Amino acid sequence: MPLTPLSPYWLRDNCPCTRCRDPRNGQKLFQITDLPDDLAITDQDESAGHLAVLWSDGHRSRYPLEWLDAEGADDGRSEDGKRLWAAADFAAGLPEADWDAYLADPAERAAVLGSVLRSGFAVLRGVPAVEGQVLAVVRTFGYVRETNYGELFDVRVEADPNNLAFTSAAIAPHSDNPYRDPVPTLQLLHCLDNSAVGGDSGLVDGFRAAAVLREEAPEAFAVLTRTLVPFAFRDRTAELRADRPLIELDALGRIREVRFNNRSIGTLRLPAAELDAFYAAYRRFAAVTLRPELRLEFRLGPGDCLIFDNVRLLHARTAFEPAGPGGGSRHLQGCYADLDSLASTLAVLNRRTAALDTIAGYFEGEGAAEYLGEAVTMAEHMLQAGALAEAAGAPAHLVAAALLHDVGHFEGTGLELMAGRDNRHSDTGADWLARWFGPEVTEPVRLHVAAKRYLCTAEPGYRARLSEASEYTLGVQGGPMTPEEAAAFAALPGAGDAVAVRRWDEEAKYADAATPGFEHFRPLLAALMH
Amino acid sequence: MPLTPLSPYWLRDNCPCTRCRDPRNGQKLFQITDLPDDLAITDQDESAGHLAVLWSDGHRSRYPLEWLDAEGADDGRSEDGKRLWAAADFAAGLPEADWDAYLADPAERAAVLGSVLRSGFAVLRGVPAVEGQVLAVVRTFGYVRETNYGELFDVRVEADPNNLAFTSAAIAPHSDNPYRDPVPTLQLLHCLDNSAVGGDSGLVDGFRAAAVLREEAPEAFAVLTRTLVPFAFRDRTAELRADRPLIELDALGRIREVRFNNRSIGTLRLPAAELDAFYAAYRRFAAVTLRPELRLEFRLGPGDCLIFDNVRLLHARTAFEPAGPGGGSRHLQGCYADLDSLASTLAVLNRRTAALDTIAGYFEGEGAAEYLGEAVTMAEHMLQAGALAEAAGAPAHLVAAALLHDVGHFEGTGLELMAGRDNRHSDTGADWLARWFGPEVTEPVRLHVAAKRYLCTAEPGYRARLSEASEYTLGVQGGPMTPEEAAAFAALPGAGDAVAVRRWDEEAKYADAATPGFEHFRPLLAALMH
Repeated sequence: MPLTPLSPYWLRDNCPCTRCRDPRNGQKLFQITDLPDDLAITDQDESAGHLAVLWSDGHRSRYPLEWLDAEGADDGRSEDGKRLWAAADFAAGLPEADWDAYLADPAERAAVLGSVLRSGFAVLRGVPAVEGQVLAVVRTFGYVRETNYGELFDVRVEADPNNLAFTSAAIAPHSDNPYRDPVPTLQLLHCLDNSAVGGDSGLVDGFRAAAVLREEAPEAFAVLTRTLVPFAFRDRTAELRADRPLIELDALGRIREVRFNNRSIGTLRLPAAELDAFYAAYRRFAAVTLRPELRLEFRLGPGDCLIFDNVRLLHARTAFEPAGPGGGSRHLQGCYADLDSLASTLAVLNRRTAALDTIAGYFEGEGAAEYLGEAVTMAEHMLQAGALAEAAGAPAHLVAAALLHDVGHFEGTGLELMAGRDNRHSDTGADWLARWFGPEVTEPVRLHVAAKRYLCTAEPGYRARLSEASEYTLGVQGGPMTPEEAAAFAALPGAGDAVAVRRWDEEAKYADAATPGFEHFRPLLAALMH
Repeated sequence: MPLTPLSPYWLRDNCPCTRCRDPRNGQKLFQITDLPDDLAITDQDESAGHLAVLWSDGHRSRYPLEWLDAEGADDGRSEDGKRLWAAADFAAGLPEADWDAYLADPAERAAVLGSVLRSGFAVLRGVPAVEGQVLAVVRTFGYVRETNYGELFDVRVEADPNNLAFTSAAIAPHSDNPYRDPVPTLQLLHCLDNSAVGGDSGLVDGFRAAAVLREEAPEAFAVLTRTLVPFAFRDRTAELRADRPLIELDALGRIREVRFNNRSIGTLRLPAAELDAFYAAYRRFAAVTLRPELRLEFRLGPGDCLIFDNVRLLHARTAFEPAGPGGGSRHLQGCYADLDSLASTLAVLNRRTAALDTIAGYFEGEGAAEYLGEAVTMAEHMLQAGALAEAAGAPAHLVAAALLHDVGHFEGTGLELMAGRDNRHSDTGADWLARWFGPEVTEPVRLHVAAKRYLCTAEPGYRARLSEASEYTLGVQGGPMTPEEAAAFAALPGAGDAVAVRRWDEEAKYADAATPGFEHFRPLLAALMH
């Protein structure tokens, strides 16, 4: 437990209380300059897994010990967050997925996005080979970065090409748009047609190439990290310029970005000795990028979409026969996007998976406990409610609400997340679920207790059918509604859904009913999550 | 003349010949590894303003001496390319322009874009206060950077805000989206309504604040340049993370980017002593950003659009009264974009202005020379042709073609740009003009000599009306077309336009005709340029 020494301003800046931090997005609600100059810890106490701190300005903070102990993770953008590779590492196959599976299965999607982050690329197969489809691929994880080449660009032989890409010539390993700042950090290439002779694709891990250079020629590596290279592109409508090193390190000296494009290097203006040193290092690095063992070669066919990290991987192609009477042709559509949104999409996918795992865990753990005097466990009760909703042909959001209506009873949900708030289980459950589900799921959960009180008033005979335990809790929950309360409830937008959930709730109390397990409902829940 | 020592690989990498470099976009057509390991200069000779080089591999290069002598410029993104400011520097007024003038006048547009690059911001006034208009502003110089906040976002009080921006609270100087990498480098805020009490805007030059910190507390400055800060944002649909320093230096140690946003700084995980040092430096920097003398305050009114550099300026606002029965309201629409496209747009504007200045110079300089034995100077001849076209109600592109049809006679155009190509003046002129004008202007210029040869064949009596000098040059140019040549010419898409230009050309040879000067035609030409 690293309780001493604790950095006071650091600790206070991380106070998790709702006065200091917006619970919706984790954003801080105070300025660092709001803290007094002599901030100190006046008192501290460790108990119940938390460190309680009284500050010299009177503020009180409470930190989970596991947060204090946590290891730091970083943004994964430097070489430390990557799997550096050579061609042989993919002898067993490329990181790839089928487009339909990618769309349908969050795990498949996570695997593809994770490959782009870790290995720098992935291939989607079976993406409909129609124009513009590459934009639909981007929209599954982020946003298009429009450039002077358009929102998307066609890679095929053009009559008046403004870029070597739009010819049939071979292109050596390079990264795109180094003359932009910010450079687009992702590129997609979607193959519509590749019936040409030639036109194979190549990828080189620029981080690996840079690491090889660092190993073999540390001084050349150092020269490339400290020389600002004037990348430039000019045509009729654009005149772009960015001065950046070929190999960019982060503040800790780790490789963070590689830009490599011989076509776009403009005129360096340095003393001759520095030019000699740069060109020797640049030629040496270029030679490394051309080593066959570093170059992964494969062929894109119609429907293949390659997604790759444009500030790490270098991409290349072999020459091909231009379209002719006897020959085929080659047509890719490409566009640019950015790594940050892709990483965000993956993080959200992963936390949804983690949330589903957490919920699944409750069904298996605490859920196995007795359900307030009923003949079923909590898990059985909720699974029965979900199954009843499903059997009734209810829409997915009501199946989810029925399945999850009592999550507020699980101890963890209330203690972990709703500290200091009303712990009535319907509110607690709905608030907890709101992290992942919309109001169409959370509001029937929130109102399912009120729906019982409503039905006891509004529906003759309903109260008489309540189980013994339910009749008991009715009193605790406020008893039947007054007629005025019932009218107000009936006017709520979600009242009908809440009543439906309530009925499945009441029915779901049979011992030994055969119900599907939680895993049965996982895809339905995953599809409903934000 | 820095002829010795010249760095051989540098010199060769900059060979301007058309085998080495694509004349359309300046991109190199060879790999740096294509050059031999022992490349050397075998012979060199300086004459006619050029350095001719014979290389050890037999290649020959020819470099303008003024290119060899040129000073390097950089991309202007570091503090060296900026005008660092304090609030008092704008006592006389903000850098601003009227929207209509901005759209109509390239000089006004260049001034606004130049202010954003140099001072970090500019304000457009009179931008129609309608929703979505901010996207039209972006399209005048670049592309929207879409984020999790949307293509554009509304800055107004929201019921369930996921960001402090969407409340009525005061916001201290900060930059946006530091948790993105790449961070959007430009932000626009377009005011639709600001009838609220409060809600004034503030800007602080983050580069200036960083420079002040460097001056007053160099060690604190150093700490902020080398500490990776985990910026984070998390809501239902996003989980963004970027680890970057608050003050980022380029490879030469110059301030290049500033990120500053207390709300988004996540948990640093460092030894306590480093945390203490970071927080001391961060608090000190934060205090600098709050100094009144650094904060420029102004109020955006409906129709005002603020454009600012989001990796340099910090923006702020004062609190305002939320909309109520008695009060007004505040509604801005914002979006993100990037500096690179803005700088490119400005560079293209500037080179068009430079091109128009060059053309104007020819009209005043060489153009004052005798025109091949006619009674007028070249400039008078071309201005008369342009004026005739204008008087005839010709479309702008034909007025331009008539005005410029003989630019190929100007010595500079051929020598500078078309070395080694056919210097027949119609081709030379058309090729030179193609740098800025489309085929609707260049092709009538290219064909205006052929049109004479065509008319001599196709139109009875035409040849008899030729001036003495024109009759003489007809022979040099190939004489009248054969009937077959004439039929082929008439079938060309641009033949009609070329014939029209030719007729104005023939008429434009009157001494002492009153014609407008070149400046009269500048707006027409500017509007036609790519």
